[in-house]
Amino acid sequence: MKEKIAIVSLKGSVLANNIAKQLKVDLMEIDFKQFPSNEFYLRLNESVRGKDVFIVHSMGSQVSDELMSLFILIDCLKRSFAKQIHIFLPYFPYARQDRVSLPREPISAKLLANLFDAAGSDHVIACELHSPQIQGFFNKPMDNIDLVSLFESHFTSQDLTDTVMVAVDVGGAKLVKTLADRLGLPMVIMHKVRPSQNEATIQEVVGDVSGKNCIMFDDMVDTGGSVMKAFDALQERGANKITLAAVHPVLSNNAMEKLVNHGFAEIVFANTLDLDNNDKKVSVLDISSKIAMVFRQIANNESVTQVLYE
Amino acid sequence: MKEKIAIVSLKGSVLANNIAKQLKVDLMEIDFKQFPSNEFYLRLNESVRGKDVFIVHSMGSQVSDELMSLFILIDCLKRSFAKQIHIFLPYFPYARQDRVSLPREPISAKLLANLFDAAGSDHVIACELHSPQIQGFFNKPMDNIDLVSLFESHFTSQDLTDTVMVAVDVGGAKLVKTLADRLGLPMVIMHKVRPSQNEATIQEVVGDVSGKNCIMFDDMVDTGGSVMKAFDALQERGANKITLAAVHPVLSNNAMEKLVNHGFAEIVFANTLDLDNNDKKVSVLDISSKIAMVFRQIANNESVTQVLYE
Amino acid sequence: MKEKIAIVSLKGSVLANNIAKQLKVDLMEIDFKQFPSNEFYLRLNESVRGKDVFIVHSMGSQVSDELMSLFILIDCLKRSFAKQIHIFLPYFPYARQDRVSLPREPISAKLLANLFDAAGSDHVIACELHSPQIQGFFNKPMDNIDLVSLFESHFTSQDLTDTVMVAVDVGGAKLVKTLADRLGLPMVIMHKVRPSQNEATIQEVVGDVSGKNCIMFDDMVDTGGSVMKAFDALQERGANKITLAAVHPVLSNNAMEKLVNHGFAEIVFANTLDLDNNDKKVSVLDISSKIAMVFRQIANNESVTQVLYE
Amino acid sequence: MKEKIAIVSLKGSVLANNIAKQLKVDLMEIDFKQFPSNEFYLRLNESVRGKDVFIVHSMGSQVSDELMSLFILIDCLKRSFAKQIHIFLPYFPYARQDRVSLPREPISAKLLANLFDAAGSDHVIACELHSPQIQGFFNKPMDNIDLVSLFESHFTSQDLTDTVMVAVDVGGAKLVKTLADRLGLPMVIMHKVRPSQNEATIQEVVGDVSGKNCIMFDDMVDTGGSVMKAFDALQERGANKITLAAVHPVLSNNAMEKLVNHGFAEIVFANTLDLDNNDKKVSVLDISSKIAMVFRQIANNESVTQVLYE
Amino acid sequence: MKEKIAIVSLKGSVLANNIAKQLKVDLMEIDFKQFPSNEFYLRLNESVRGKDVFIVHSMGSQVSDELMSLFILIDCLKRSFAKQIHIFLPYFPYARQDRVSLPREPISAKLLANLFDAAGSDHVIACELHSPQIQGFFNKPMDNIDLVSLFESHFTSQDLTDTVMVAVDVGGAKLVKTLADRLGLPMVIMHKVRPSQNEATIQEVVGDVSGKNCIMFDDMVDTGGSVMKAFDALQERGANKITLAAVHPVLSNNAMEKLVNHGFAEIVFANTLDLDNNDKKVSVLDISSKIAMVFRQIANNESVTQVLYE
Amino acid sequence: MKEKIAIVSLKGSVLANNIAKQLKVDLMEIDFKQFPSNEFYLRLNESVRGKDVFIVHSMGSQVSDELMSLFILIDCLKRSFAKQIHIFLPYFPYARQDRVSLPREPISAKLLANLFDAAGSDHVIACELHSPQIQGFFNKPMDNIDLVSLFESHFTSQDLTDTVMVAVDVGGAKLVKTLADRLGLPMVIMHKVRPSQNEATIQEVVGDVSGKNCIMFDDMVDTGGSVMKAFDALQERGANKITLAAVHPVLSNNAMEKLVNHGFAEIVFANTLDLDNNDKKVSVLDISSKIAMVFRQIANNESVTQVLYE
Repeated sequence: MKEKIAIVSLKGSVLANNIAKQLKVDLMEIDFKQFPSNEFYLRLNESVRGKDVFIVHSMGSQVSDELMSLFILIDCLKRSFAKQIHIFLPYFPYARQDRVSLPREPISAKLLANLFDAAGSDHVIACELHSPQIQGFFNKPMDNIDLVSLFESHFTSQDLTDTVMVAVDVGGAKLVKTLADRLGLPMVIMHKVRPSQNEATIQEVVGDVSGKNCIMFDDMVDTGGSVMKAFDALQERGANKITLAAVHPVLSNNAMEKLVNHGFAEIVFANTLDLDNNDKKVSVLDISSKIAMVFRQIANNESVTQVLYE
Repeated sequence: MKEKIAIVSLKGSVLANNIAKQLKVDLMEIDFKQFPSNEFYLRLNESVRGKDVFIVHSMGSQVSDELMSLFILIDCLKRSFAKQIHIFLPYFPYARQDRVSLPREPISAKLLANLFDAAGSDHVIACELHSPQIQGFFNKPMDNIDLVSLFESHFTSQDLTDTVMVAVDVGGAKLVKTLADRLGLPMVIMHKVRPSQNEATIQEVVGDVSGKNCIMFDDMVDTGGSVMKAFDALQERGANKITLAAVHPVLSNNAMEKLVNHGFAEIVFANTLDLDNNDKKVSVLDISSKIAMVFRQIANNESVTQVLYE
Repeated sequence: MKEKIAIVSLKGSVLANNIAKQLKVDLMEIDFKQFPSNEFYLRLNESVRGKDVFIVHSMGSQVSDELMSLFILIDCLKRSFAKQIHIFLPYFPYARQDRVSLPREPISAKLLANLFDAAGSDHVIACELHSPQIQGFFNKPMDNIDLVSLFESHFTSQDLTDTVMVAVDVGGAKLVKTLADRLGLPMVIMHKVRPSQNEATIQEVVGDVSGKNCIMFDDMVDTGGSVMKAFDALQERGANKITLAAVHPVLSNNAMEKLVNHGFAEIVFANTLDLDNNDKKVSVLDISSKIAMVFRQIANNESVTQVLYE
Repeated sequence: MKEKIAIVSLKGSVLANNIAKQLKVDLMEIDFKQFPSNEFYLRLNESVRGKDVFIVHSMGSQVSDELMSLFILIDCLKRSFAKQIHIFLPYFPYARQDRVSLPREPISAKLLANLFDAAGSDHVIACELHSPQIQGFFNKPMDNIDLVSLFESHFTSQDLTDTVMVAVDVGGAKLVKTLADRLGLPMVIMHKVRPSQNEATIQEVVGDVSGKNCIMFDDMVDTGGSVMKAFDALQERGANKITLAAVHPVLSNNAMEKLVNHGFAEIVFANTLDLDNNDKKVSVLDISSKIAMVFRQIANNESVTQVLYE
Repeated sequence: MKEKIAIVSLKGSVLANNIAKQLKVDLMEIDFKQFPSNEFYLRLNESVRGKDVFIVHSMGSQVSDELMSLFILIDCLKRSFAKQIHIFLPYFPYARQDRVSLPREPISAKLLANLFDAAGSDHVIACELHSPQIQGFFNKPMDNIDLVSLFESHFTSQDLTDTVMVAVDVGGAKLVKTLADRLGLPMVIMHKVRPSQNEATIQEVVGDVSGKNCIMFDDMVDTGGSVMKAFDALQERGANKITLAAVHPVLSNNAMEKLVNHGFAEIVFANTLDLDNNDKKVSVLDISSKIAMVFRQIANNESVTQVLYE
Repeated sequence: MKEKIAIVSLKGSVLANNIAKQLKVDLMEIDFKQFPSNEFYLRLNESVRGKDVFIVHSMGSQVSDELMSLFILIDCLKRSFAKQIHIFLPYFPYARQDRVSLPREPISAKLLANLFDAAGSDHVIACELHSPQIQGFFNKPMDNIDLVSLFESHFTSQDLTDTVMVAVDVGGAKLVKTLADRLGLPMVIMHKVRPSQNEATIQEVVGDVSGKNCIMFDDMVDTGGSVMKAFDALQERGANKITLAAVHPVLSNNAMEKLVNHGFAEIVFANTLDLDNNDKKVSVLDISSKIAMVFRQIANNESVTQVLYE
């Protein structure tokens, strides 16, 4: 494997190290720093000529820095004659800006696809895209790895009597349905309504939650505002134990702390973003072995599908 | 207007003629035929040098012929030095193939975006895309015209007491919510569930429809199969009057006749596809004046937003 | 060979099967269908990651369907990480629209080159292009396989005393000359002339055919109209036995039946298009072993030239 | 016109000056020279920002220098913000290398199309392309100006009794037929045949020339070798007066002198290449007013077709 | 002017306002913010359809945020049908990474050119590029505005007896020579030398500075480290009054304060980056009227050269 | 090696032969000629399918012919299915036109990068580019081979007491500093100054040369005018022995003869351009083994850096 591929991570995240270890490869040695002017400097300390290079790039909170340094890394690999540059972006940033919802807005997720392409990317791999259509923003093939199966495994081992899956808004109902169907649970869908001009919006709950255990599921939690409001609305309607499950822990504005203190019975995330938490209510589902398998199959020109989706 | 723009329609549809009339422009004269070998022949009988050319292309049932002849028209306009080639596709074909839902599928809607671009298109205008993310399949700017307002106007004049909006599946819930919110109606969401391996799928209805008038709303009706099953499920659960509203009347397999005979109180479509019907239960919402306005603003370099969305 | 290449044919034609058999490879398993709306659906049932994929695509009479389904197949292979996508198009459609012959016409053959490229094709292989310049419509390398040698072998075994090769029009004279030179036969060239405004066109025959056996040769026969008129003109001028030979049997409008009944001594085609005929006057020259050799050489990175042209 | 367009010619040819004069525009002032190292230097002495710039580029005998200096001029105009760069190349070089005639040859004419595009050309205009398919080598629109009409006018005024048009080889028969049809003359086609391995090629003449006046017509004369051999073959077969007409006077290796001394009754060329001759047998057909009209129509966004082709 | 152009600045800098005021145009109204997740949101509040839009983008210290927000703005303008998008970047970031100086480094300045292009930029305008070759990183035309003339005017009014221009390193000598020649001053060039492995580098001064007034000139000052070391070396060699002049005040790590306290007689910058200083030793040369003139000429399709460079 | 790579040289230069010999590969057999019309003809006599092809292209004095024939070779290799086309251009022509130094000039070096790309080049390798920024003119990776080490080895073996390195102008000072630092020599910088409008320019010498041995170093010598003027100025200022060293011997206008007769103690060039000289004062540094090593490493997918730069 070592002769064929190289794995590089600008900040050497835990995830990158775990993946590399499972593939019995060392992370590539690089010289990476930020000048006083805040421009990045990068140099590779090893040859990548003719290799399949996998970049493992967990987004941190400084989105712009993460992206600019990634573009520079791609340019550097391209100019150093890498054979193929695969970018593993566990969480695809700007994924929510995937359409023009008001006139004269950008489509920032599409812009990113263009910028990756311009920098020299051959292949982007992401997990549970906010909308699967984002794959179509790329001309080159793009992989969108299904992580619902991790959540299915996690909940299958629990007692699911009297449990309903809850979609926090209509946009997320499709993803929730996938998990609900796999677990054999009924589904409840929430959405916000403003009864009239002068009244505040209220949380409409379509379906019955009274006396039920609720598992909210969503592709990401950002500030946590809507899931906490949803929690309150479910509780008002007589819900029993309420669990929060979401793929991507974006967790801006100190959201983790607020969530932990809000009364959720359990909080479940995948480690697609770095996650620093020791609270016993929080479960973290590890994606590293799944990803290592994907890299191995790609490097061996074998089917990714058979390993992961079937 | 005549000096600046040209409007062309390969088959000279009613819609194209109506739009041209409102802009006081004649449809361009062309020589268009199909050879015995089924290859198309095309020649423009007027100069388009330096003009903004608008193609009005209502899809018929022969999707491949519609697309190939359109690509040929675009090539022809490009080689004849049109200044800008605007393609008005009221119904965007292959819009449902907008993501890889099973491994090793194409993304045909993205393919179309690439083919339009390769043929020489400068700008595509569609109505109510199946998913708004399709805009992001294009590098060039692309317009997605909101037609929900036509349905809002249509239903506003009706008595909406005890009426609920129904989404036939979770994928369509977001569009239904837009109309429900504008009309101030509650929303019910249906989805299919297969209780166990050996049982048939059943139509789950999330929300209450008993004694209610129901307006199903969707972006398109194709064979009509799911809306008729949804009708039956709603009726079983005690729904009162049931209306079907949908933007695009694709209506394959003689669907119109089946729908008309299925018991719907009213059937409402926009004329984004050619529609031949005299049944009094069917209402057709005309898009031509809205589109004519869009063309005029574009030709005059004025804002399309102010006219249409605000 | 199986590990390196995959061969796929949307409709599993006889030609495709023959080629695959000679290469000891099974045709790839695919799921291909047309929805009631006439949109195509496609899914590959096998991995193509890292493989050289050869598409064998014999054109049928529904040209637009053939092309659209081919574009979708290419997109699908590209997104499934095929290493190289080779498109074998025995008959290149729209090849006669290879130039602007009247102002404001498209160049549809060039358009096709652009569309193949946009869909994701790496390499197109065709046989006896209507004009060899079509190779230059592609930026990527393109192969144009010489089939004149098949006709040379066929006629070499016949008695060619008092035989002349006939070009039906001046545009085809160059191709006819190639075969005439290889067979050592003299050449006669026909062309249509309109003596004056009010008279009908007549078939001019440059060269002497009286008492001669004639072999008309052309790159394709479409409706058969011109070759039948040419037959009549030759007969009028005292020609003896008249044979029709052409590479591509497009044969629109029931042409085969008309030709068979028109008096030709023999009719010879290559099987670059599917051909259903049992008339004993018709000879079909099989291209499959030639093509299988081309595929094998390409897959082995060996010279195609040495095998085929020298 | 002066505000809208600029006309530039690197060497300020007579043709360029004539065109400019007819459009009442001065040729653009430029600083153009060749360094001792044979690299070219160029600078524009006037602003071209926002202008339609027409380059008039008559090829001289130093083909490589002509092309490199043209590419540099295009780059220079592009970086100086010209609105549109139109390249008028009366004679398109490398036009005979328009296909792969032997394996592993380049397609140099297509290469040129790619190089023009890469340099920044918006539009190429040529006259009587060697093969009209070269238009399809360009993705951008390309004009191929018909000059047969000039020859039609020239010969119409002559006595054409007992005259035949002669194509020197089968490749040129199509062009000859165009002029023959317009003049109402019969056509004779010549081609070279090598009777057997050890014999020299002989000039085959298909059609009768005995006692006839012959007008050979071709798209270009290069060294003049084939037309002189054709002259001899026609004379042997009893031809009467023999005229040579050709569009492009490439005239390598002192061809003009040889032609003038070979016995032709008349020699007719268009001035698509610079032509220095005072022999009274030579007629030069001037293209400048035709081209000036094309430029004017383009600059005014008016149809070129109506002026030139109809 | 208002009908033709729009000027937009994400942060509404003083420079942008000054330029807009001189052109009698209001800055475009936009809705620009950063979400808690640090992703940017942008919406234009005015139509830009068919307009020449000038972005005025003074870099701040958060380089990555500046660039990402700029890319998003470009995407937004492109999708809103701006006619031309001109990006005025007074200081071009990453300009020092304009070549591979050690193996396996990126060329970040070229990467930026690619990213601007991919986002949809039509034209980039910068001032005094670190190396003028950066213009060649762009395929599209790019403007590099000469600001040396501002410094020439500034110093011309001073007493320059016994004054020498100093280049701080050999890389900057070419720029210094430009100003030295215009002011008629001799030039001194400094460079660092490490006498042997174990010794510290010393400042070599090529030329004589003893008893001379020195004006150091460079294209930018970043941390100020080298100019302060140069100051010390000059002083050691007996220099009299020492002035620091530089185009771009990058001024990282609190450099301004350090410079002001280091003993320079005068410190002169252009306002290509925002500059907050009230120290009387610091002179700021204003670029706004020069830039306003450039915008006006571009909008009017008139020569920029005549106004600025001659 | 023979199975993997092919080496081709249009004119079969000595350098190409030496490199091929060291790699134990024969130069590829080609058929290359110039027609009487000065168009080039080319055909490969061997298959290159799937091979890494290295073009060795030493520039001769006919720059345009050299470039056009090279473009044609690239097109030919591309259409013959070479796997990768590497162009080794020891001397990169037009390198001095790498920026717009006066308004409305081209950037010819960037144009070349675009033309190579359009022709089908995958990789360009040059030696000691006039400015290293030219690497950034390419989107694809580009190698710039350091030849200073050859000069370092050459001079290290000489007695360098009382020796200074001389830069002939400020633009070349950076390159001179590289060699000066490696040899541990002080540096002197010359530049031209025009004291006032009516006086002639004089050669300013910054630094002391009296009684010193001088080694002028530059990236190229063209007509030799400036180095001979520099020689005179150094001599006037009391310089002792004066040596000329330069990488690229462009040597236009019979420069070699003039240089040899001008009094230089030694003249040293690399053989990046063909060099015919037997004068004993001239030393030629051979690059062939260095280049052969580069080709071998590339063909083996091994690091070029470790071999050459470290």
